[in-house]
Amino acid sequence: MAHEGDCFLVPGPVRMSDACLEAMATPVITARGTEFRDVMADLNSGLRTAFNLTPSSRERGTESWSGEDGYKVIAVSGSGTAAMEMVIANRFRPNDRVLVPTNGKFGERVADICKQYCQVKHITYEWGRSFDLMELEEQLGRGTFEALLICHNETSSGITQDAAALAQMCTEHGVAFILDGITSVGGLPVHPAKWNVEAVVMGAQKCTSGPSGIAAIAVNEHFVERVQTIRQQGDSNPVYYLDLLSALKKGNDDQTPWTPAINLAMGWAVSLRELEEEGLENRWNRCRRLADGVRRLFSDLGFMLLADGGQQSDTVTAIMYPEGFNDSWRSKLKDEYQTQVIGAQDHLKGKMFRVGSMGTTSIDEMVEGCHRMIACFNEMGHALPNVDVASYFA
Amino acid sequence: MAHEGDCFLVPGPVRMSDACLEAMATPVITARGTEFRDVMADLNSGLRTAFNLTPSSRERGTESWSGEDGYKVIAVSGSGTAAMEMVIANRFRPNDRVLVPTNGKFGERVADICKQYCQVKHITYEWGRSFDLMELEEQLGRGTFEALLICHNETSSGITQDAAALAQMCTEHGVAFILDGITSVGGLPVHPAKWNVEAVVMGAQKCTSGPSGIAAIAVNEHFVERVQTIRQQGDSNPVYYLDLLSALKKGNDDQTPWTPAINLAMGWAVSLRELEEEGLENRWNRCRRLADGVRRLFSDLGFMLLADGGQQSDTVTAIMYPEGFNDSWRSKLKDEYQTQVIGAQDHLKGKMFRVGSMGTTSIDEMVEGCHRMIACFNEMGHALPNVDVASYFA
Repeated sequence: MAHEGDCFLVPGPVRMSDACLEAMATPVITARGTEFRDVMADLNSGLRTAFNLTPSSRERGTESWSGEDGYKVIAVSGSGTAAMEMVIANRFRPNDRVLVPTNGKFGERVADICKQYCQVKHITYEWGRSFDLMELEEQLGRGTFEALLICHNETSSGITQDAAALAQMCTEHGVAFILDGITSVGGLPVHPAKWNVEAVVMGAQKCTSGPSGIAAIAVNEHFVERVQTIRQQGDSNPVYYLDLLSALKKGNDDQTPWTPAINLAMGWAVSLRELEEEGLENRWNRCRRLADGVRRLFSDLGFMLLADGGQQSDTVTAIMYPEGFNDSWRSKLKDEYQTQVIGAQDHLKGKMFRVGSMGTTSIDEMVEGCHRMIACFNEMGHALPNVDVASYFA
Repeated sequence: MAHEGDCFLVPGPVRMSDACLEAMATPVITARGTEFRDVMADLNSGLRTAFNLTPSSRERGTESWSGEDGYKVIAVSGSGTAAMEMVIANRFRPNDRVLVPTNGKFGERVADICKQYCQVKHITYEWGRSFDLMELEEQLGRGTFEALLICHNETSSGITQDAAALAQMCTEHGVAFILDGITSVGGLPVHPAKWNVEAVVMGAQKCTSGPSGIAAIAVNEHFVERVQTIRQQGDSNPVYYLDLLSALKKGNDDQTPWTPAINLAMGWAVSLRELEEEGLENRWNRCRRLADGVRRLFSDLGFMLLADGGQQSDTVTAIMYPEGFNDSWRSKLKDEYQTQVIGAQDHLKGKMFRVGSMGTTSIDEMVEGCHRMIACFNEMGHALPNVDVASYFA
């Protein structure tokens, strides 16, 4: 069945379901009563699914946030950036050294957050270029780093890092591995336990189709022990709203330390149930099928992709504009073709566009969106060959 | 016309209007496009009204966040606690000394946040007791304090501080005056410019009937100068998500530094328009009429109020339980009388209940709620005299 109406192909915030929107419009309830604690238990259980952790019960009072693998999930009323700061501010002492390789804007943000709270070795690669794993292995081998932090999936440049290889290096060298999974968790294979990840972060409005303004972290037992030790030693960074120990105190009771974003939690819990219904691996596969089609289609049409081959992201594709094009194409696409994709950031602004393939985007919507993108290029004078768009997504 | 249905008499989160809930269920838009910047301009203008600042235009690109009085408003995607932390973390150097007098839980939270970021002299008064103004004057006269910070309206104990008197002392002694107005702004008279307040904070889900998970600050020019100076001197606290300078960079463009809580901003903007339609002073007057009625009614019925006379809050009334009563009364009231009030916190848990009179609560709802509270006491064996409830709110 062909997709009708708007095509919303943005790498977050992504379309929310009617059920999610309806839940967000629930009349007020208090943050401390049993009704909201039921919501939190439901949300926590859904978060464990999205994080690819062992299951927990959705019932209040059953430690919905923890499971056999020892990880705990914590919802944060704030953006993914806040959740990532919560991980960093609590986990490190001002004198701890961390390694942060980056190849895009959001990795650079991870490094910037770290600079506030600890000592950072920031290794920059050009946006879209793969990390030099030999260089990172050499750095980790020096034995001076407390942790390696990466932005797992870089939406600014459309590249996914080789987390499995980095995880193995971290294990070998006894270095903590921490993932900004804001745009990967729920959309790409992430294996916290297998990779021995100490902490991983996700944002609701990305792969899980929830509302913006709420995010979550998953942390293992070693992470919690380190936070407690640092605090006991009086060697911690200042932190309050994002205090992990305050959150841990409340978590077993399905509560939050401060007033949470009640309606966002309700909406997100619904989105996460929809993810469970689809199945986590099915969602990964759909995202891959969407992105793979976009990559092959636009490559065949003669476009250049920004990210290095073999590491292109399955939740966002960064496509360079042809000579003579800029974001006026995107404006026309939005206004006349009711199709939204997103532009580039910082030094790549106006040089490329990015197509999201995360959340609940259907194959039909992507096929229709690609038809419209091609038509818009054609109308603006960049004649493209005739191709069977649907066949790329079959 | 008598109130029908539930009575929700909680001091936040308060009932949201249907229009606010409907706005919260708006389908996804991006955080960087003109649609969301229109929302931000609308929200900023509404915030200025609630903060009792000079008006601004609701049009995007017209500096909706600033006005003739030199104050700027900044929305924060997080709870009121996050907004208060944003003020404190940015405004003070680790060695700055601040004075924080408290008489309830939320004042104590202000002191706790300050302890993370600067040197605090915390003067504690019993919950519900007035500050000793002579003692505070003596402290301020020592010339060692950078600022006085207070929780203006203490919902935990139902007392409102004498902000005008404290403001005058601060001006006389050249000390910055900072207000946690989370449960006063929009419900009680707050005069930032007249009181020369450097920063004031509010939470959406309190007096302005917005959703929880979003809050705002208003800061004057001196505040911003101090933040910039401290930063230039390299003497600042670590801060990222709550970085004021990042927010200032984006504000004139009706943008936010990180992905905002888009749907909460939409909902709150609607609530603030409803506040404008009622009129700020009309709302203050309605809250006072509601609280005054509750105070006089329950006093006549033989109950004790926790807070000192003359300083009882107009947005929440803290009422001691009669001998032999505890929160089982509240459970019965909720389950059998469809009426919610809230219990007490910390050491007063089970000893009193609190009745909210903030937001858009109508006189009719309060009259009906009081009837039900009386009926519930009577049913549980605490026979109360017959009184004309409605006459207390006439």
